[in-house]
Amino acid sequence: MAKTAITPTRAEDYPEWFQQVVRAADMAETSAVRGCIVIKPWGYRLWENMQRSLDDMFKATGHQNAYFPLFIPMSFLEKEAEHVEGFAKECAVVTHHRLEPDPDGGLRPAGKLEEPLIVRPTSETIIGATYAKWVQSYRDLPILINQWANVVRWEMRTRMFLRTAEFLWQEGHTVHATAEEAVEETERMIDVYADFAENWMAMPVIVGSKTDSERFPGAVETLSIEAMMQDRKALQAGTSHFLGQNFSKAQEIKFQSETGDIQYAWTTSWGVSTRLVGALVMTHSDDDGLVLPPRLAPIQIVIQPIYKGDDQRGQILQYVNELRDQIAAQKYDNQPIRIEIDDRDIRGGEKKWYHVKRGVPIRLEVGPKDMAADSVFVGRRDQPKCIGMDKAEFVAKVSDLLAQIQTGLFERALAMRNDNTVTIDNEADFRSFFTPANAKNPEIHGGFAKCHFASEADLADLLKELKVTPRCIPRGDNHPGKCFLTGKPAEHYAIFAKSY
Amino acid sequence: MAKTAITPTRAEDYPEWFQQVVRAADMAETSAVRGCIVIKPWGYRLWENMQRSLDDMFKATGHQNAYFPLFIPMSFLEKEAEHVEGFAKECAVVTHHRLEPDPDGGLRPAGKLEEPLIVRPTSETIIGATYAKWVQSYRDLPILINQWANVVRWEMRTRMFLRTAEFLWQEGHTVHATAEEAVEETERMIDVYADFAENWMAMPVIVGSKTDSERFPGAVETLSIEAMMQDRKALQAGTSHFLGQNFSKAQEIKFQSETGDIQYAWTTSWGVSTRLVGALVMTHSDDDGLVLPPRLAPIQIVIQPIYKGDDQRGQILQYVNELRDQIAAQKYDNQPIRIEIDDRDIRGGEKKWYHVKRGVPIRLEVGPKDMAADSVFVGRRDQPKCIGMDKAEFVAKVSDLLAQIQTGLFERALAMRNDNTVTIDNEADFRSFFTPANAKNPEIHGGFAKCHFASEADLADLLKELKVTPRCIPRGDNHPGKCFLTGKPAEHYAIFAKSY
Repeated sequence: MAKTAITPTRAEDYPEWFQQVVRAADMAETSAVRGCIVIKPWGYRLWENMQRSLDDMFKATGHQNAYFPLFIPMSFLEKEAEHVEGFAKECAVVTHHRLEPDPDGGLRPAGKLEEPLIVRPTSETIIGATYAKWVQSYRDLPILINQWANVVRWEMRTRMFLRTAEFLWQEGHTVHATAEEAVEETERMIDVYADFAENWMAMPVIVGSKTDSERFPGAVETLSIEAMMQDRKALQAGTSHFLGQNFSKAQEIKFQSETGDIQYAWTTSWGVSTRLVGALVMTHSDDDGLVLPPRLAPIQIVIQPIYKGDDQRGQILQYVNELRDQIAAQKYDNQPIRIEIDDRDIRGGEKKWYHVKRGVPIRLEVGPKDMAADSVFVGRRDQPKCIGMDKAEFVAKVSDLLAQIQTGLFERALAMRNDNTVTIDNEADFRSFFTPANAKNPEIHGGFAKCHFASEADLADLLKELKVTPRCIPRGDNHPGKCFLTGKPAEHYAIFAKSY
Repeated sequence: MAKTAITPTRAEDYPEWFQQVVRAADMAETSAVRGCIVIKPWGYRLWENMQRSLDDMFKATGHQNAYFPLFIPMSFLEKEAEHVEGFAKECAVVTHHRLEPDPDGGLRPAGKLEEPLIVRPTSETIIGATYAKWVQSYRDLPILINQWANVVRWEMRTRMFLRTAEFLWQEGHTVHATAEEAVEETERMIDVYADFAENWMAMPVIVGSKTDSERFPGAVETLSIEAMMQDRKALQAGTSHFLGQNFSKAQEIKFQSETGDIQYAWTTSWGVSTRLVGALVMTHSDDDGLVLPPRLAPIQIVIQPIYKGDDQRGQILQYVNELRDQIAAQKYDNQPIRIEIDDRDIRGGEKKWYHVKRGVPIRLEVGPKDMAADSVFVGRRDQPKCIGMDKAEFVAKVSDLLAQIQTGLFERALAMRNDNTVTIDNEADFRSFFTPANAKNPEIHGGFAKCHFASEADLADLLKELKVTPRCIPRGDNHPGKCFLTGKPAEHYAIFAKSY
């Protein structure tokens, strides 16, 4: 039986396995504040790498960063009816601006605000109010701005990274002179997200549009990327919204066109969050702990020197220092390889598991025998066995090896998704697909079902019963058919799944 | 009379000049939320450059980034008496977690929280509560963590960047086994800030310790860097606090030492904020607008092509594209030079002022005559006149030129500070030094006074009357003397000044 570092295993209890992987990798922990987590250094370094890659992609597509207020006056939220409807139930509300001694002891809020302030759950309304001042003429358009920020949504059930009361994210907010341009932007940014998910996170995603019931509150259309986790549930990993003129009308974002008439502008918004960290964990990790794709791993290679006594220590350390420098001089992904030596004075087995659980893609063990033979002992996180390799050969191939691991993780995840995606055209199959095969692990079920449907209203009861939702109407190869439940003619199929 | 881009000038009305420089450079604007600003792309790019440089310095000194909750339970703040005393009057308080329809129309807060949450004004208490869990043994120490975050202090009087209700900052929070180590850390980080201020921002600073009355609430010692603005007022640009065991006792951060006994840990905290953007603006800018030091400028060089008609346009653009590539291939500060071509179809004068007001260090004009002569017309933002230069010579010297500008700005600011710093040993001189010479511009006064003092209590009335504070007790060449007011023996002198 293989040694298992994480208890329980994925098969035993997937949600609990996830929490334990996050803990074992020292990525995050719960805090004293309900629903808020502490992102620890290893988790934050991963987020920083995500941020930097995404930020480069945003700038390459013409966007600039800016920063808008944390607080939204309550009256601003009220302006877009669907929007406030969507967020009113999860708003943290600031009502006072100081504390004073409570006659009963301790402190109490004082200095009541004339108008309550909402801690932003998303910033369409506060940013829109600013844009209304910036936009006068068609010459002021487009506005292409992104913000890196924290947001708060008071969720009743929270789970580390996947659903937290406060989370970190980026939100792009753009303004355009025409609907066409805004739609183009909406699509451009979902493509950026898909590119990032697949090529940086090694996480295959389906790009599509949300159905009416799943759209962002206030949007005309919401595009999303949907990924399959190892429990076959869907995770919405990023969204890009075409807001039409809904927010520009609510907020008076108007401009004089080239021909002189006054028009409402067309806006978009798009975002991804620290939820991606959770998605990454759930996509690649195994029963030994975290598995990281090399492009985002804070450390890509760790060297464990193995020695006895000070004499050997000096020799081995000199040897691994040289090796580290040789490897760091190689480039992967146009950057110097991120490599560290772990020379802590702890047992070898403990040290090995430390890095395994933290998902470092390649672990090198170097002891006196390896030094004598000019070889290294290579442990790939994505493979069960370690292998000996000639040192020079390893250095020459290290960049390819990292690229192989990156590609391999993507292919493994894609195969998993393909194996668990089926086309379903009748209710019986749909029911059986979404009924857990194993009563002991109710999280495991069929996966993604591709089903034609004519109207969401027809499906409502069945979906509610099975706790299934339409994830998206996939872009691309979609085509007409018949509703799997009613047999009515259907324009397209959607992906149906249980979801996070 | 020289043309003035900013109205009013510094001499006419310094505070208003500052606001106008910020506006003219398109760095920030006020928002609909009281005391909160919108940081616009040009201001945010400057902050991003500051962040990246500081972050590299923090990592080079062994720190890692993490992220802690935005909210602090009210009871956490109460634990450290001085601390809560210092912040209670400026806390934004969250009391509800949703909105519901108000019978009178609109919305109202609902879902009252059992315990109010404070939007962090600083994070010692929430981070300390987490550290108490992390620290068990001396082996867990030191903890060296930094956080990039937004904080909120409900200030009554706000001013863009310098004092805003919400601001962006970094806060380092460290835990150590001994007082010596914690003091060392406190000093190391104030040195990092001084290095950054002087060598990146080109802003000379005085490093010293705060007097009792000016210390951070809850700290044993606060070190600060103090800079002189062009109106001769002091601006506190960064602080580093030795917190002793005050917070570890309030929060039970305890560890088992090597000898087995349980001890309270020693903590520090240190921070700089978007206030630095305001400090930078006020240190270097002139009556034409923003002046940026090259190391932090978002764009270091801008090329303005000058032409008439499409034929000339094609030739000139080809020429300036080549020039841009030649310059971008040069390195300044170990990075490719940040250069852009401004080919917008607007008048040359308008375009020139656009970049002057935004503080771009070097502006190149290239027209047909320059092309024919293989020369460029060079406008340095730190000098009044443009000069013609051989193109090849410019490319060869561009990196030196940027370094010269950087050094020149520092030296100019240092000379200004030296010219306005005097030693004062009696009340009459002190009074006259801090009495405005020009009644029309009450902001302008003497500057920094170096004065010995024995006890802050002796000075309280005089300082209050003149609106002067002790900025810091400078480190280094300090020495005993006699109090300028009472003649009592004094251990050291302090810098006295009016301040932001």
